[in-house]
Amino acid sequence: MEGDFKRKTYDELAKFVDKFGARPSGSEILEDSIDYMIQLTQEEDITDITTEKVEVPHWVRGKEVATMLKPREKNIALLGLGRSATTPEEGITAEVVVVSSFEKLDAAKYEDIKGKIVLYDPIFTTYGETVVYRSQGATKAAEKGAVAALVRSIAPFSINSPHTGSQTYGENVTQIPTAAITLEDADLIRRLYDRGETIELNIKMFSTFDIGMSRNTIIDLKGIEKPEKLVIVSGHIDSWDVGQGAMDDGGGLFVSWAAPVILKRLNLRPRRTIRSIFWTAEELGLVGAYAYEKNHKDELSNINFIMESDEGTFAPLGLAVAGTQEAKCIIAEILKLFESINASTLVEEDSPGSDIAVIIKNGVPGASLHNANERYFWFHHTEGDTMNVEDPDELDLCTAFWTAVSYIIADISVDIPR
Amino acid sequence: MEGDFKRKTYDELAKFVDKFGARPSGSEILEDSIDYMIQLTQEEDITDITTEKVEVPHWVRGKEVATMLKPREKNIALLGLGRSATTPEEGITAEVVVVSSFEKLDAAKYEDIKGKIVLYDPIFTTYGETVVYRSQGATKAAEKGAVAALVRSIAPFSINSPHTGSQTYGENVTQIPTAAITLEDADLIRRLYDRGETIELNIKMFSTFDIGMSRNTIIDLKGIEKPEKLVIVSGHIDSWDVGQGAMDDGGGLFVSWAAPVILKRLNLRPRRTIRSIFWTAEELGLVGAYAYEKNHKDELSNINFIMESDEGTFAPLGLAVAGTQEAKCIIAEILKLFESINASTLVEEDSPGSDIAVIIKNGVPGASLHNANERYFWFHHTEGDTMNVEDPDELDLCTAFWTAVSYIIADISVDIPR
Repeated sequence: MEGDFKRKTYDELAKFVDKFGARPSGSEILEDSIDYMIQLTQEEDITDITTEKVEVPHWVRGKEVATMLKPREKNIALLGLGRSATTPEEGITAEVVVVSSFEKLDAAKYEDIKGKIVLYDPIFTTYGETVVYRSQGATKAAEKGAVAALVRSIAPFSINSPHTGSQTYGENVTQIPTAAITLEDADLIRRLYDRGETIELNIKMFSTFDIGMSRNTIIDLKGIEKPEKLVIVSGHIDSWDVGQGAMDDGGGLFVSWAAPVILKRLNLRPRRTIRSIFWTAEELGLVGAYAYEKNHKDELSNINFIMESDEGTFAPLGLAVAGTQEAKCIIAEILKLFESINASTLVEEDSPGSDIAVIIKNGVPGASLHNANERYFWFHHTEGDTMNVEDPDELDLCTAFWTAVSYIIADISVDIPR
Repeated sequence: MEGDFKRKTYDELAKFVDKFGARPSGSEILEDSIDYMIQLTQEEDITDITTEKVEVPHWVRGKEVATMLKPREKNIALLGLGRSATTPEEGITAEVVVVSSFEKLDAAKYEDIKGKIVLYDPIFTTYGETVVYRSQGATKAAEKGAVAALVRSIAPFSINSPHTGSQTYGENVTQIPTAAITLEDADLIRRLYDRGETIELNIKMFSTFDIGMSRNTIIDLKGIEKPEKLVIVSGHIDSWDVGQGAMDDGGGLFVSWAAPVILKRLNLRPRRTIRSIFWTAEELGLVGAYAYEKNHKDELSNINFIMESDEGTFAPLGLAVAGTQEAKCIIAEILKLFESINASTLVEEDSPGSDIAVIIKNGVPGASLHNANERYFWFHHTEGDTMNVEDPDELDLCTAFWTAVSYIIADISVDIPR
């Protein structure tokens, strides 16, 4: 990429995340960052910007300290999971039981788990396969009488880095405190446990929870022929409360911001409307996406194609596409245009993206950015999600790809079939 | 490697580092770990074990917190450097000046540095090239009137991981507090600084310093023909106070422990004595090595060859050798025997190893373990220096290589020439 926009995605992303840092759901800083993005867009002479209010969870992490007391004293790095309950002031002190799977937990006797801290230590295979221990671990452990649940961070690599993330308490179970610990500490505890040592931890975790207000942001570059038909590009503007949210999902936010901006600058108006959406409160349960689905129920049939980038903006490789075979055929033809930048791969994926999966399950065709994100889960939901993960040239490629793909789909003669 | 010793280096190392964790110079835990290693060796029916007392620095890290106050509030992860001075109770609050080199600092006016916190942010090239900003940064900044010195961690990669390390205050300069911050935070501060923002930090760092006692440990497997001639294998038993010291230098310690143990088990006695040394207090200035040099001044001529592993025990590749061309020729011939495990490379190196460099500068030929340690500095001196870095098979290869090389050198007909 040459010209005015060269390096601009990286530079604007850096200015944004450096200014605001993490942008957790329900926080004032998230709302300020939304205002900033609106202003940044207005400066490009784009005026068709609306926001839609959304009630969002507002979970605020307080002090968190874990200490191994037996067999020796050691600080244990941890990050509470979203909406985790708090501990008493003095913390929870209990023995640890280590299980590698829910099957192992199920097989244990109630009295062997009761009053204990359960540590799940599944070895990372894929995110989809192992994330259940983070999202449902506390509930399953509580059903067995555990007093707290820890999970080996859902990550393939670590430099003693804990990874937070969402979790949901089941109904009618005690809401026990729950946190992620590092691969290193989980594996240490596993080795001690397998040697027959008694492991005792003290866990102190404090937080507050209430409901806040936020906004989805919608930017339209109106189509000249079928303005009611939409091709949506999107990313989420909220982030976890650690790191800068540069990768998750600052990159996706900015390539989706760039698409209408570049087309506007080039004075290119496709047949259909290009809509850029900055979802809010993705991290605490796709809250913005569900609100959009509800607000726009009647217009879902007008969505020609919906795209999201929320798995990194490393070198683009193509798209992960949901839709009919005919739809995929058309997208595959379009992707052939990107052979020169090695971004022609079409991956078939029933439920691509995160927010857009909510819309796609209504039968809307869509895609997420398929990119060279082998290291994505090294940084995901950690203090390491910063600009250091991002590369100016890769972001330029993503921006060019995202803009061109959305333009082509918005401008081709046929609608993407359902 | 098959047989009794398969996986044993890894398993014994794990038991050791899991039991003791970090083993900082001057601590009781280090002395306990030395006792443990002596007992572990005695259990192998090796009785020729001596220890030599060494006065060592005993720097104990206390609470350390850094907060960026301007342009916005943000926690800054940091690790104080060895022997760092403490701050007042309320910390030091000052503006930050960012410099990428000593030249840039020299070029700045005294009044522009006075009262400020200096952040050095050289981009990692090699350890040797950039570590001077850690080891001498505080002194140079203090000479310009700075109130504290920070350094971008000396590492090529990070997940927001600060790297501690040694530093030395020059004479007649104010001893200002000094710490390493992460690549991510250093780069954030650099970007803000380059945008003209005023950056203010509060740094609180507490520690204590006194002199403790420790021991070098010396294990001899006496030679049958020239017992006074020594082939030394070694690693250091102390570690930094973060992580487990599994990589730095638990691996080197255990492959050097394994050499005499395996030869004893195999009932192999070479012509010369194989001496295994566990150096103490390497991290705070090669203190054990200097004490050994002093105590054994008269016997240095008896050291036929001295080896150390202190740059990782990843897959062995060969040796980094110091000595005459003739010495290197002999070592190169020996290394040819290790072609089947790809460990035949001889790297020429004037000052290999860390502790042994003290002995080698007296004209003693020696070598450090050359291994596939591309990621060594990812974990070096961090909380991530744990068993997760170590691999059982690679450790087996290192042990086999280390043992065989030392045996061959101890048993060949000629002495290694000087």
